[in-house]
Amino acid sequence: MKKANHQLIILVCIIFCFTTATFANDDPLPSWNEGESKEAIFSFVNKITNKNTSSYIQPAERIAVFDNDGTLWAEQPMYVQLVFAIDRVKQLAPEHPEWKNKYPFDAALEGDINKLLKNGNRSLMALIMASHAGTTTDEFSTIVKNWLSSAKHPKTGRSYTDMVYLPMLELLTYLRSNDFHTYIVSGGGVEFMRPWIGKVYGIPPEQVIGSSIKTKFIMKNGEPVLMRLPEINFIDDKEGKPIGIHQHIGRRPIAAFGNSDGDLQMLQWTMSGEGKHFAMIVHHNDAKREWAYDRKSHIGHLDKALDEAKSKGWTIVDMKTDWKQIYITKKVSH
Amino acid sequence: MKKANHQLIILVCIIFCFTTATFANDDPLPSWNEGESKEAIFSFVNKITNKNTSSYIQPAERIAVFDNDGTLWAEQPMYVQLVFAIDRVKQLAPEHPEWKNKYPFDAALEGDINKLLKNGNRSLMALIMASHAGTTTDEFSTIVKNWLSSAKHPKTGRSYTDMVYLPMLELLTYLRSNDFHTYIVSGGGVEFMRPWIGKVYGIPPEQVIGSSIKTKFIMKNGEPVLMRLPEINFIDDKEGKPIGIHQHIGRRPIAAFGNSDGDLQMLQWTMSGEGKHFAMIVHHNDAKREWAYDRKSHIGHLDKALDEAKSKGWTIVDMKTDWKQIYITKKVSH
Repeated sequence: MKKANHQLIILVCIIFCFTTATFANDDPLPSWNEGESKEAIFSFVNKITNKNTSSYIQPAERIAVFDNDGTLWAEQPMYVQLVFAIDRVKQLAPEHPEWKNKYPFDAALEGDINKLLKNGNRSLMALIMASHAGTTTDEFSTIVKNWLSSAKHPKTGRSYTDMVYLPMLELLTYLRSNDFHTYIVSGGGVEFMRPWIGKVYGIPPEQVIGSSIKTKFIMKNGEPVLMRLPEINFIDDKEGKPIGIHQHIGRRPIAAFGNSDGDLQMLQWTMSGEGKHFAMIVHHNDAKREWAYDRKSHIGHLDKALDEAKSKGWTIVDMKTDWKQIYITKKVSH
Repeated sequence: MKKANHQLIILVCIIFCFTTATFANDDPLPSWNEGESKEAIFSFVNKITNKNTSSYIQPAERIAVFDNDGTLWAEQPMYVQLVFAIDRVKQLAPEHPEWKNKYPFDAALEGDINKLLKNGNRSLMALIMASHAGTTTDEFSTIVKNWLSSAKHPKTGRSYTDMVYLPMLELLTYLRSNDFHTYIVSGGGVEFMRPWIGKVYGIPPEQVIGSSIKTKFIMKNGEPVLMRLPEINFIDDKEGKPIGIHQHIGRRPIAAFGNSDGDLQMLQWTMSGEGKHFAMIVHHNDAKREWAYDRKSHIGHLDKALDEAKSKGWTIVDMKTDWKQIYITKKVSH
């Protein structure tokens, strides 16, 4: 009898282990705690992929759009692209002695972020123009890749591409496994994102929508190149996001993911189409593991979109309680 | 012996019929006559899809770009979109009594094409602005679809979407069956093309690149809409084509198909990347079954690109001898 009991316990253990392992493997969002946000994601995907319901949506129409800064990777204490622009201004400074006494370049060279940000977007634009133009598109791609392979975050000391949110990576993969087409729709520069986004998010260059400067087609040593010009082409932020989505995709997304007021119009546009839709806002409220900011932050300002999300019942991710883990564990090799 | 002979003949016939049927079914380009053009297409596709050679190209990189007017459908005696613009000006004329005495609207209302074209693109632009703006993007899509469902070509009496080239449709299908991603890159308006291009060419809206006017995101009766503005956003022609391709796809195509000087830079851009590439020009030299035009034509002007194609050994499709049949036989239902 004792032996039989022993065997029974072992058997139960084996079954339990197998079941747990199976459940663990079956969960496509293991870094998400059980709760309203996780349930809302599953519920939406189950509804639109079930052929037997009126909510069913064809795979071709399963367009999901993701903001990047603050939605897929960290954006504090300042946008990664701004750090890149400052580093590039420093690198180019020897060719521009006049920058020493010219705002906003002086602020960038001194590393004085408050001084740099005091004029809002205008000074950032001047910095972007000077640091992002003057090369071919191919050269710029190499410059971005080289920078990312060595740059480190000032607080965590990690590579920027290692500060990608694991729960969001799981979400991207989960949606794609359900035949969604995942797009980035970011205020950031499209040519700043494309060189690394394939490796990091599994998103191909043709599914990246972003801000851009103009380019010019010229022949250089008998070969055609696209030269990057110091002139704004498109700002993919706020009202620009639905415009960029329409220009690029020509279909209305059925799911949108953002974290700031810059994403509000993209969320509104997504939620106003026919059929089932899904809108989600990542709320940064975890000062310990990441950052806590919303209505009063200059970076990732979240105010109107938070109110609208609450009033319309959009999913608000509570980073502190919804996410088991924030960043990816594995380093991304460049 | 006689009976045996008889049986042998039947057997040979059966084998012959089977073989012929098999060959016919196996040919992905049945409307193309055997010849250099057809061979060049097969040779290129075989090389880049063969994993055992150094020419192999990953499916993700198999981007093929197609001009539309004159490459995929007829463009004579004038671009279909221009016919649409004239019809729309006529429709809107009662709201604009001033158009009667204002160029180029007077020319459009009188149906005087020579007068309309005498100022080149500038008058066409004025016509496009007036006839393509002032609606939401959704409304414009419906307007285009409705127009196409009833408009007839002045010479053939066929629907414009029935004047698509069968050999090119076969080519699109053949490339896609070899994991190519087929894109339209046209000087025509992206929003004029997207409403019908899925049904006619099997190309989804996100793979259509074209000229565009600006849009504005506004709230209309509490719902977000994109209003079409009478302001040029992007001209996807000549140097604009590689720029549009880079903005939209972010990869260099490996195959490009055009028919006029407006496609030259797209062809150059495609041919200057690394690895194997393919460039093709459709040469309209079949006055009997279609039209014959090149160096002296205002529509589909082909001069420099023809010289460059010849000097660089690009494939030049001789419509008269390369194509068994020009247009599709089946009507496209709208």
